[in-house]
This record gives sequence, structure tokens and C-alpha cells, in this order.
Amino acid sequence: MKFKPLGDRILVKRLEDETEKTTGGIIIPDTAKEKPQRGKVVSLGEGKRTEEGNLLPMRLKKGQEVLFGKYSGNEVKIDGEEYIIMREDDILGVIE
Amino acid sequence: MKFKPLGDRILVKRLEDETEKTTGGIIIPDTAKEKPQRGKVVSLGEGKRTEEGNLLPMRLKKGQEVLFGKYSGNEVKIDGEEYIIMREDDILGVIE
Amino acid sequence: MKFKPLGDRILVKRLEDETEKTTGGIIIPDTAKEKPQRGKVVSLGEGKRTEEGNLLPMRLKKGQEVLFGKYSGNEVKIDGEEYIIMREDDILGVIE
Amino acid sequence: MKFKPLGDRILVKRLEDETEKTTGGIIIPDTAKEKPQRGKVVSLGEGKRTEEGNLLPMRLKKGQEVLFGKYSGNEVKIDGEEYIIMREDDILGVIE
Amino acid sequence: MKFKPLGDRILVKRLEDETEKTTGGIIIPDTAKEKPQRGKVVSLGEGKRTEEGNLLPMRLKKGQEVLFGKYSGNEVKIDGEEYIIMREDDILGVIE
Amino acid sequence: MKFKPLGDRILVKRLEDETEKTTGGIIIPDTAKEKPQRGKVVSLGEGKRTEEGNLLPMRLKKGQEVLFGKYSGNEVKIDGEEYIIMREDDILGVIE
Amino acid sequence: MKFKPLGDRILVKRLEDETEKTTGGIIIPDTAKEKPQRGKVVSLGEGKRTEEGNLLPMRLKKGQEVLFGKYSGNEVKIDGEEYIIMREDDILGVIE
Repeated sequence: MKFKPLGDRILVKRLEDETEKTTGGIIIPDTAKEKPQRGKVVSLGEGKRTEEGNLLPMRLKKGQEVLFGKYSGNEVKIDGEEYIIMREDDILGVIE
Repeated sequence: MKFKPLGDRILVKRLEDETEKTTGGIIIPDTAKEKPQRGKVVSLGEGKRTEEGNLLPMRLKKGQEVLFGKYSGNEVKIDGEEYIIMREDDILGVIE
Repeated sequence: MKFKPLGDRILVKRLEDETEKTTGGIIIPDTAKEKPQRGKVVSLGEGKRTEEGNLLPMRLKKGQEVLFGKYSGNEVKIDGEEYIIMREDDILGVIE
Repeated sequence: MKFKPLGDRILVKRLEDETEKTTGGIIIPDTAKEKPQRGKVVSLGEGKRTEEGNLLPMRLKKGQEVLFGKYSGNEVKIDGEEYIIMREDDILGVIE
Repeated sequence: MKFKPLGDRILVKRLEDETEKTTGGIIIPDTAKEKPQRGKVVSLGEGKRTEEGNLLPMRLKKGQEVLFGKYSGNEVKIDGEEYIIMREDDILGVIE
Repeated sequence: MKFKPLGDRILVKRLEDETEKTTGGIIIPDTAKEKPQRGKVVSLGEGKRTEEGNLLPMRLKKGQEVLFGKYSGNEVKIDGEEYIIMREDDILGVIE
Repeated sequence: MKFKPLGDRILVKRLEDETEKTTGGIIIPDTAKEKPQRGKVVSLGEGKRTEEGNLLPMRLKKGQEVLFGKYSGNEVKIDGEEYIIMREDDILGVIE
């Protein structure tokens, strides 16, 4: 089973909060109104189509670990696992 | 009877939730506020017309299985069966 | 008496819901929040004028049977009959 | 006394509802939430100025009988008579 | 003392409502929700700057008598007299 | 200490209302809902960057006395004195 | 551990309010509704991508001390320290 996001959307696997200090020690503050979430890019669309029909390639890559806003995107289950579909621009940045 | 969507709209046949694990095991989580829905593309418009009048061809194809937001589109009945009319960009992605 | 819509507007004659199964068996579901309506295109404007003044020709044609959202457009009476004036893009698609 | 509307605005003299069947039998339904009104174009601006400064000529002409939404425009009195100033695009169409 | 409006703004001196029939007999209806006001153009900015930096010259001229919406612009006092600063496009038209 | 506003922002020193008749007799009316304020341009950004990346030079100059809306901008203290940071287009005009 | 903001976003380390007079004597007023905050640019994205896909380079630089609105951006913790992710245009200006 494969899911191909449309346009500038990406499929993201949320990384669990329990492991708050893995992969570089990112900790999400509990008190923030909209806490950024950590996730991994699983699959990407072909890119954004501009108003005049040109294709802008994705800036993110499969496998990157990213931060995104808590309320970004739509949750889905694929093969029993939860993912989030969101637009690339909802991603705040990449953990390197 | 045939229905031809206008512009960048598509006609989608919703796939039943009872068969939650068919065609690749997509399961929609019950708790999400806006649960994505699964459907099949039945017919498509000619494409989006840009502000200056150029035609952008559709990216989706007839027969593709897609995910879309629960509140996307308008419901209609054609020949006794329910369908949804929505814009192509309301589609989150394609199940391959 | 003739009415010529301005720009990308069209004049539509609503087709009665009582004849729910004529012309192809389109049935509008009773439960939808915004039920699409069926109608016939009676007259059309010259087309949409772009921001820079170019004219985009209408995509619909006189006589076509169309679906549109329940709350689209303005109702008018011409020669004692009710019509709806709406923009072409409010049309969801054409029944062929 | 003369009034010259600015840009794409027009000055419209509302035609009375009492004469509901003159000039082609247009009747405005009483029950519509926003009843379209009938009026006559009295004077017009020079046209719309685009974002880059080009002038788009008016599509309407002086003397045409038009329909417009009830809440469109600003009411003014000139030489003791009431008129409405609105943008050309608020006009729904022309009665021919 | 001189005031130079910025961009496409103009400085307008409101003409008193008591002289309701001067200069062409314009009378503002009392019942309108947003009554247009009469005023005289006192000074003008250099023009509107487009998104790409071109200057669009003003269409109005100093000394013209104009109509504008009641709630348009910002009131100021200069040398003890009240004026209104508004954008040129808030002007409904010119009394000739 | 120096503060350089970003883009099309400016740093403005508000001129006190007690001196209501200095520098040309500008008096701000007490009753206006949003009273324009008087101030002096202290420093300016490099200019506005257009959507395509061109730089539009500032139209205002350091030292000019300006009017601006009461609720425009962000207040800051620099070296113990209060200033306001706002966009150039929030300036209503220049007192000459 | 490194965090690379996406597009025109920047990662900012807020500077404490207790040291209200360091680095140039910037003091944030207590009474302002939305108090600007002081911070240091820690890392920057590659720049803003325009609608047509061109890259606009960042105007800010790593290490600069900046002011920004109190409610701008998303708070995150990286290696146990709090940062804010915001768009470059949320920055009011640079303290030099």
C-alpha cells in the first residue's frame, strides 16, 4: 500500500512525545498554546502548481525529521498506523 | 446519464467505511475532528482556468482512489446513487 | 423581453424538484446541508473580464442542464417566471 | 448639475416597484432575501483602473435598464431626486 | 502650514450639511445607513504606487467637489479647521 | 545605540499632544474614534520588497513630521524614550 | 543538533527582559498591549519562494539582535533551551 500526496502536500509520521530527548534533544514545551510537533516525512507530492501552471519542486525530502504546528494537516490511518497529511509550507523547519 | 464537472471539479463516489481495510488497508481514525474520506474518481472537469484564461489540465485520473476532507464538496444523487462534487485541490492524495 | 447577464453571469431557470427522476435520474438528497439544484441555462453574459481587461469566453452554453449550489445567485422574476442569476463558476457541472 | 462617478462606478436611478410589469414584465419576488432592483444608468465613470494603471472601458451604457442587488451601492440625492452610486460589477445584467 | 498626503491619499474639507442645496442641489438622504458626504479636495498625494513600484497619477484634482462615504478616512484638524484624509478610491464621484 | 527598521517599516517619535499648536497648528480632534497622531521620522528601513524581490525605495525621509493613525504600529522604548515602529503606508501624510 | 528553518522562517533566541538595559538600552514598555520582544537570530531558512518559484534571499543575518511582536511565531525547545520560530517579516527591525 502506498499513498501519494497531491500537489505540495506531504505525508508525515508523528514521532512520539515520550521520546522527548531522542534525535537531538528536541523538547516541546508543555505550556505553549500551539505546541509544534515532531515528525518524519514519509512521502511527498510532486510539488506546488503555480497560478500559471508551473510546477515548483518540493523543498523537503523523504526521511527528513521536521517540526510542524499542532493543528496542521489531516490525520489518516494507513495499514493501521496514524499519519498526518499537510502542505509543505506548514512545516516549520528541519532537524539536522 | 453522464455528469461533466465544470472546470477543476471532480465527481467522486465515496467508498464505504465498513470496508475499512480494503484496497490497501486505509483506516480513517474515529477521533479526528475532520476525518478524511476515501473515494473513487468517477469523472473530471477539463481543468482549472487561470486568471488569464489558460487551461491547467487535471492532475487526477478517472478511477483513482483518493482521500479527501469530510466536509469537502457538494453531495448529489445521480441515477439513485450518491456522489460528491469537489475541486481537485480538495483531494489530499491518491492511494496507489 | 430579454435579459442579458453582465460579464461571467448566467440566467438559469430552476427545474422543479417534483420531477426528481427526469432527464437522467438526478435526485437531490434531502439531508444535505446545501442541496445542489438542477437548472437550465437560459442566457449568458459575454464572459469574464480579467484583471488586465481580456475577455474569457463562457464555458457553458445556452440550453445546457446544470447543477448549482442551493444558495448561489440572485432570484428574479421575468415575464412572471422565476429565474436565478449567478456567476458561471457557481455551476458545479453539466448533465449530459 | 452633473455628477461624474469615479473609476468603474455608475450613477443609477431606481425604477419604482409599483410599475412591476413595465418595460418587459420584470417582477421582483417578495420573498427573496436580497431582492434585485431595477434601475436606469444615468452616468458612468471613465472605467476601472487596473493594478498596473491601464483603463478598462465601461461595459454598460447610459440609458440602459439594469438589475442590481438590493444592498448594492450608496444612495444620494441630486437636485431633489434619489440615485444610487455603485460599481459596474454590482450590476447583474441588462434588460433588453 | 501645508499637509501633503502620502501615496494615493487626499485631504478633503467637508462641506456643511446646512447648505444642503448649494452647488447643484445635492441633498444627502437622512435615512440612508451610510450617508455620502460632500467635500472639496484640498491637497493630494503623488499617486498610488503599484505592487511593482510604478506610480499611478491621481485622477482627482485640487478644488474639485466630491462625494464620499460617511465613514471614510481619518479626521484631522489643521490650523484650527477640520479635514478628512482618505484614499482617492474612497471618493464616489465628482460634482461638475 | 541605533535601530534599523526592517523592510518598509519606520521608527517614529511621537510628538506630544500638549504642544497642540506647534509646527503649523495641527490640532487633533478629541472626539474622533481613531485620532491621528503627530510624529517625527527617526529612522527608516531600506524599502519594501515586492513579491518578485525588487526593492521599492522609501518615500518618506528622516526628520519629516508626519500624521498616522492612533492604533498604528508597535510601541518600543530605546535608551529610555518611547518610539513607534510602523509600516510606511500607515503614514497618512507629511506636514510641510 | 541543528535546526534549519524552512523557507523565510528564522529561529530566534529570546533575550531575557531582566537585562532591560543591556546591548543598547532597549526597554520594552510594560503597558503596551502587544509588547515587542528582543531576541537573537540563531539560524535562518534559505529564503522566501515567490509565487513563480524564485528564491528571495534572507535580509537578516545570523547573530543579529532583533525586535519582534510578542505573539509572533511558534515556541520550541531544542537541547533544553527555548526558541521561537517565525517568519522573517515578523521581525520589526535590527538593533545595531
